[in-house]
Amino acid sequence: MQSARKHAVVFDAYGTLFDVHCVASAIESLFPGRGSQLSQLWRSKQLEYTFLRTIGQRYTDFWAITESALQYACDALMLPLDLGGRHRLMQAYLELSPFAETLEVLVALREADHALAILSNGSPAMLQALVSNARMEGLFAHVLSVDAVKQYKPQPAVYELACQALGLPAERIVFVSSNGWDAAGAGWFGFRTFWVNRQAMPIERLDSPPRRTSATLKGLPEYLDSVDALAD
Amino acid sequence: MQSARKHAVVFDAYGTLFDVHCVASAIESLFPGRGSQLSQLWRSKQLEYTFLRTIGQRYTDFWAITESALQYACDALMLPLDLGGRHRLMQAYLELSPFAETLEVLVALREADHALAILSNGSPAMLQALVSNARMEGLFAHVLSVDAVKQYKPQPAVYELACQALGLPAERIVFVSSNGWDAAGAGWFGFRTFWVNRQAMPIERLDSPPRRTSATLKGLPEYLDSVDALAD
Repeated sequence: MQSARKHAVVFDAYGTLFDVHCVASAIESLFPGRGSQLSQLWRSKQLEYTFLRTIGQRYTDFWAITESALQYACDALMLPLDLGGRHRLMQAYLELSPFAETLEVLVALREADHALAILSNGSPAMLQALVSNARMEGLFAHVLSVDAVKQYKPQPAVYELACQALGLPAERIVFVSSNGWDAAGAGWFGFRTFWVNRQAMPIERLDSPPRRTSATLKGLPEYLDSVDALAD
Repeated sequence: MQSARKHAVVFDAYGTLFDVHCVASAIESLFPGRGSQLSQLWRSKQLEYTFLRTIGQRYTDFWAITESALQYACDALMLPLDLGGRHRLMQAYLELSPFAETLEVLVALREADHALAILSNGSPAMLQALVSNARMEGLFAHVLSVDAVKQYKPQPAVYELACQALGLPAERIVFVSSNGWDAAGAGWFGFRTFWVNRQAMPIERLDSPPRRTSATLKGLPEYLDSVDALAD
């Protein structure tokens, strides 16, 4: 997938293209009234475990981490999770829905000749399930997993995977994430960053502000035109 | 400080010897009714920033991180923090109180001829202020800061600082922390771990259970006697 555009576009997956809190409805069927609370704690623990296992040099893949985080979150909320329930909730993680605008924005970017990629904490099998389930296989030149380097974001070696796959220096990559810390890490690495601030959160105080902030992905095509128009 | 004991004892500082939520009362004087909420968010953001800056290879010291986390937490809760308020709250971090049992347990351990050390994320100046303010200077053979390696826990290089300072292999060190993730990281490194589970939290699902769990530091002398009695 060659592109005449100067900049390629690399997307985070979880929370950016796909809604991690879709799992809340699966949770509701198991633990009525607890969907939102368990979904939030599960997600925050999942991220914490990616950080801890990277720093502690004890990598396990995102499927294992997601399962451990679910178990912890159920322990903390005193929700009895049996094997069948665990299977159902983990399965929901493979079938997360894209956000309402995701598909139309991706298609518009491909029609405008942008090279697109995913760079995610997810394991290769998890990412393949997500992309396939959403019928997005043809849109991405690369679906890249941190599993190739056995460390999680914001490790520079993770972001480097996108440069290698796309054959571009960091400054020619626009990185799109809804996770403020991921956008900050990508900015540290040298990407141009587009922060999808879906939850109206404050900016992270990490000395790495995003180049552009938007409530959804919809502002992305215009931003990409503006950066492609920049003189070298 | 030589010791006839087989094991040295290394303590985490924040949350283990000293109560980080002491700052809630200083917060109450600025933002009535918000002490607990801001204190919790400040603390969790502070830890998150230590993780992110370690993984992203963007170390700043714990004072700078604590200040950034405070700013973020106030932004998130829409609390207007002016320069004077920030100074007051940061100052409170230098004057955290020890827990009720901290001093008596430390004194008992010294009288029983245990070598004691602190190994903390805190900057050297922050740790000196804490120890001095609590009149604990004479109790510790070493007060060690991650600042020596410019990375935060649970980086193995951090825990290694204790081995170097004490001249002991990891298996001869009992590491005491109230932070479940810190106890897990210390266990990964090879320390014997004593988890002070002050808040009755579930065990972290990180494949590194503590050797002993206790609600306060009070169970520590008995545990140390039991490990010292183990055959080599």
